[in-house]
Amino acid sequence: MSEPSHQGVVAIIPMLVCRDGAAEIAFCTAAFGAVERSRRSGADGSVIHATLSIGLQLLFIHGEVDVLASRGPQPDGTSPVVIYLYVDDADRVIDQAVRAGATILRPAADQPWGDRVGRIMDPAGHVWNVAGRIAKEL
Amino acid sequence: MSEPSHQGVVAIIPMLVCRDGAAEIAFCTAAFGAVERSRRSGADGSVIHATLSIGLQLLFIHGEVDVLASRGPQPDGTSPVVIYLYVDDADRVIDQAVRAGATILRPAADQPWGDRVGRIMDPAGHVWNVAGRIAKEL
Repeated sequence: MSEPSHQGVVAIIPMLVCRDGAAEIAFCTAAFGAVERSRRSGADGSVIHATLSIGLQLLFIHGEVDVLASRGPQPDGTSPVVIYLYVDDADRVIDQAVRAGATILRPAADQPWGDRVGRIMDPAGHVWNVAGRIAKEL
Repeated sequence: MSEPSHQGVVAIIPMLVCRDGAAEIAFCTAAFGAVERSRRSGADGSVIHATLSIGLQLLFIHGEVDVLASRGPQPDGTSPVVIYLYVDDADRVIDQAVRAGATILRPAADQPWGDRVGRIMDPAGHVWNVAGRIAKEL
């Protein structure tokens, strides 16, 4: 795997903190076709850290651990970071995500900024905008 | 600007929800050298949505709005999504971020997975792992 940080290159990878990291990996696999690249688990088998890829993009999953303050989101759509996921066919991916356990916060609709986008909450409480481009230019 | 979603390509862009979007844009500019690509503001001048770039990576900033449940993070390090930011020199960028108002949650240290990484909280309460690679191979 190539290095994420060559000279002069920046990478931004969201790390989703979850009470149940294994369930989140299973959800991302079923909903978005994510591929599990690595997984590190604790003595009790719970996921500490995992690396997923969705297409060419990386995503980290992290468990709740005592030494870090990070905690999974409240399951009410208030999560302070929304993961904007651009895909070829937002409607198809939203359907897959719902079958994998997501709930729809806002149904897919065409938006004036050139995206067709729906907002979903995954079983862990993380919020995703699943979007496809409908305009060639803004 | 090229399209974010060509056929078969996926893009993941974290959208940071903030009570004061303008302050977050100023922070990201000073701390990370972010460039403001677009900004949409409400009638009261508050930021609804902005697009920033850090290197080749995009980042969205979003205000708190009535029609969406998303709210800015609690300023206690518990935010459920950590933004993992790979840069050339983590120590230098952490210093810049602190000068721009961030607080250090965990000082930069070499980690067994091949990153030198420090964890900071920005003035809005968003949590960042600022990291550089120290190992050529894991």
